[in-house]
This record gives sequence, C-alpha cells and structure tokens, in this order.
Amino acid sequence: MSQSYKQKQSVTYYMCDRTQQLTLSMLVNLLLNVSENHSAELNRQESVIREMGFNWIVLRYEFMVARMPRYKEEVEIETFATEYNKLFTYREFIVRDSNQNELIKVKTTFALMNIENRKMARIPSEVIAPYEAAFSERIRRNSKPHEVDQIHAVQTNYSVRYFDIDANQHVNNSKYIEWLLDSLNTSFMASHQMQHGIITFDKEVKEDDTVTSKVSHRADTQIYTDHHILVGETIHATASFQWNER
Amino acid sequence: MSQSYKQKQSVTYYMCDRTQQLTLSMLVNLLLNVSENHSAELNRQESVIREMGFNWIVLRYEFMVARMPRYKEEVEIETFATEYNKLFTYREFIVRDSNQNELIKVKTTFALMNIENRKMARIPSEVIAPYEAAFSERIRRNSKPHEVDQIHAVQTNYSVRYFDIDANQHVNNSKYIEWLLDSLNTSFMASHQMQHGIITFDKEVKEDDTVTSKVSHRADTQIYTDHHILVGETIHATASFQWNER
Repeated sequence: MSQSYKQKQSVTYYMCDRTQQLTLSMLVNLLLNVSENHSAELNRQESVIREMGFNWIVLRYEFMVARMPRYKEEVEIETFATEYNKLFTYREFIVRDSNQNELIKVKTTFALMNIENRKMARIPSEVIAPYEAAFSERIRRNSKPHEVDQIHAVQTNYSVRYFDIDANQHVNNSKYIEWLLDSLNTSFMASHQMQHGIITFDKEVKEDDTVTSKVSHRADTQIYTDHHILVGETIHATASFQWNER
Repeated sequence: MSQSYKQKQSVTYYMCDRTQQLTLSMLVNLLLNVSENHSAELNRQESVIREMGFNWIVLRYEFMVARMPRYKEEVEIETFATEYNKLFTYREFIVRDSNQNELIKVKTTFALMNIENRKMARIPSEVIAPYEAAFSERIRRNSKPHEVDQIHAVQTNYSVRYFDIDANQHVNNSKYIEWLLDSLNTSFMASHQMQHGIITFDKEVKEDDTVTSKVSHRADTQIYTDHHILVGETIHATASFQWNER
C-alpha cells in the first residue's frame, strides 16, 4: 500500500467563480499544493528534485466530479501515488466534504523533466522510492479526449501574460484550464456543471506565444465539449468535458 | 482601540510569480480573506451584510513593501479598522514574517454599495459598530496616483474573461492589478521590485467590456510607473507604483 497524505483546505472567496463554487483551475492549484506537501514530508519536495536536475510535470488530468466545493466549505484533500513505471507516475486525489462524502476524484499522470534539455527523463528510484507506490513494467493506455469537430468549432485567441509563467519558467497548467473554459460562452458556463473531464498537456506554451483555444459541442444522452489548445497549427493541449445542466 | 484580527498564512506555489515571490494580486486576495474572517468573527461576514442589502467594495489600496513574501514562507496577516465616517471605512493590514518583522503595510478605503442600485450607501452603525473603530466627521483626503504621461504612454487591451467576474457579479479587484502590471514589459517586471503603490478603483468594469491598460514611466531619484485602466475614454482605475531595482 502506498503512502497517503491528507490536508484540510478552506475554500476562500478568491478560489471561487461567480456561482461561489471552486474553479477547476484553482482545484488543480490546490491539488498540486497537497502533492508538494506530501513530497516534502518524504523529503522529496520540489527543491530536492530540482537539485537532482529534474522538475515534475503533469501530463494528464482526469476529473470525476460529484459536485464542486462551495465558498467557505471546509474540505479534505487526500493524495497517494498509485503506481509508476520507468517514465510515468500515477497519482490520485480525493476531495471530501466535512462529512467524508467524496466530492471529487482526480487521476493524474506525472513525468520527470530534465531541467537542462527540457525532455522527459527516466524516473530514478531515489526520486520515487519514498512514496512506496507499486512498480509496473506496463505503461498505461489512458483514454484520450474526443476529437474536436473542426467544422463547427469556434476559437478564441489568448496572449500569454506575465503572470501566466510560473517559477518553472513555463505557463502554469492552471492557465491552460482558464483558456479551455473561457472559450465556452458565458450562458453555457453559468448553466452547466462539469461532471467529468480529461485534459492532456502535450507541449509547453512559451512566453511570447499567442494560443488559440478551440472548442466544439457534442451531445448524445449527455452534453460534451471537446477542446484543443494550439499555437499556430500545433496542438499543445487537448480536453473533453462532460456537463450536466444545473 | 479597534478590534484587531490575526491569521497565519502559508505562501504556496500558485500564489507566486516566476521569481517565487507572492504576486500583488494574490496579496490582495489574501488580505480580503483575512478581512472577511475578521468580519465573520464579529458576525458581520459578507452574507450578513448582503442580507442587509449591501456589499463592501474597496476604493483604494496603498502598499508599503519592505519585501514580498517568498514561496513556502509562513507569514502572519494582521488587520484592523482604524477609523470610519459616514461614507468610508479605513482598514489597515500588516504582513509580518515568522520573526515578526514587518514585510508589508497596506492602507485601504472601503465603502458600502447598495446591492439594488449599485451606488454607495451611508454606513449604518449596525454594520460598523462591532469593529470598534473611531468615528470621525472628517473624510480623509488621500494622496492620489500621479498623472499618466499621455504622450509617452503605451497601452495594452484586455478582454474581460469569464473567471474575472466574482460572486459579486463584477470584475474582481485583483484582476485590475493583473492588467496594471501585465502592461509593463517582462524585462522591467523581472528586474524591479515594487516598493510603494497606490491604486484607486473609480468605476466598475462589466462583463463584456474591453479594457485598456495604459502606462508611462517616470524617474527622478526613484523609478515610477503611472497607470490608467480605461473602458473607451473613461477611467475605471488609476495607479502609481514606485520601484527598486532588484
């Protein structure tokens, strides 16, 4: 059984959107904070990993949302590394309300980036051992976001801003999420709740880039949106979300 | 002596910029969180004020910065209402490091907005009494930001985004700060530290607005930047910052 770490979190005003619910981008910020605190407890915090020549990067999020936490709610965030192989670590997060009801489950894929050449690196055992996750030869085949409908897609452009760049000197993942969701129109956003989502991060966005956030809608018995984040013609991130009417 | 309230705060990764320092917009978010917790302790939290028909709005910030808190630093934020008159409440914040050294002092002016007509309201004593601030007939004449040099000013446009709107259904003050600072160029931002700043909020920015962030530079023995946030020709916010080289 792998190491598990729990942390309580108050949902403050600045974490919430106009409907007084935690935003998805802030959820991701909070999860990564808990993950870093977990690592620090095992003496594998960011600064230690950096001294070894690496940064952790997140390649994929999958969100299962019963409901988003509300303004002033006290939640508990649990995290644990479930499994790793030579290239990837799989980490899960569970967000629970004060009655221990599960609100959100998130599955993530992490990889190590070599700071010098900014390429993915094999995960050394000295980095991963303290988490006591299971090693597996097998690399998971995770489900991918659905294709964007190129004919009906609409697109919005965003310039990278000064504060989009984080201490790792690239655009923070939470900013991609803002670009993904801002491209949906206001009336859709205000009348729908996200129930399930997959985001993949395929390529870094750089300081002077202008990104295009492209989205198409899809419906069968459920409502979906499918997304690309592009710089020019190159896909930097993809996503699909499943929505409920509020 | 007025009621004082203190709260500890960890500086997390998502609160910091590329230099691993707390951003000014996140500082403001944290201050308002402490202010709300102070109010809640006195049973004057936002929801109580809203039931009376009001929202607090911030009209002015003045920042005195010895240094900004750093990533992973533990700080303490103290706040107290210093004085009020029929229209304004003056609230101060002090941010201290773990050795009780003063890092930042912030002076703010709050007013009450009537939710129905979105105009400023007289402050009823039932709203303000619990804070035990001194009443004064006198309305303070606060110093204002310096004029923008219209000839040499440069400007950048920003569309209001879905997540810029907060639960009060207007653009959150912290977003104005991002527009103010993003309009400075990257090399200036990365090589200077803000030492002193005044921001005034003069008019709400609405959902579908495009704002213009205008800035000019000024120097005598110190380095200054002067700012306007405009919608069309109308000024919605003004600011002046004094900077040190890093």
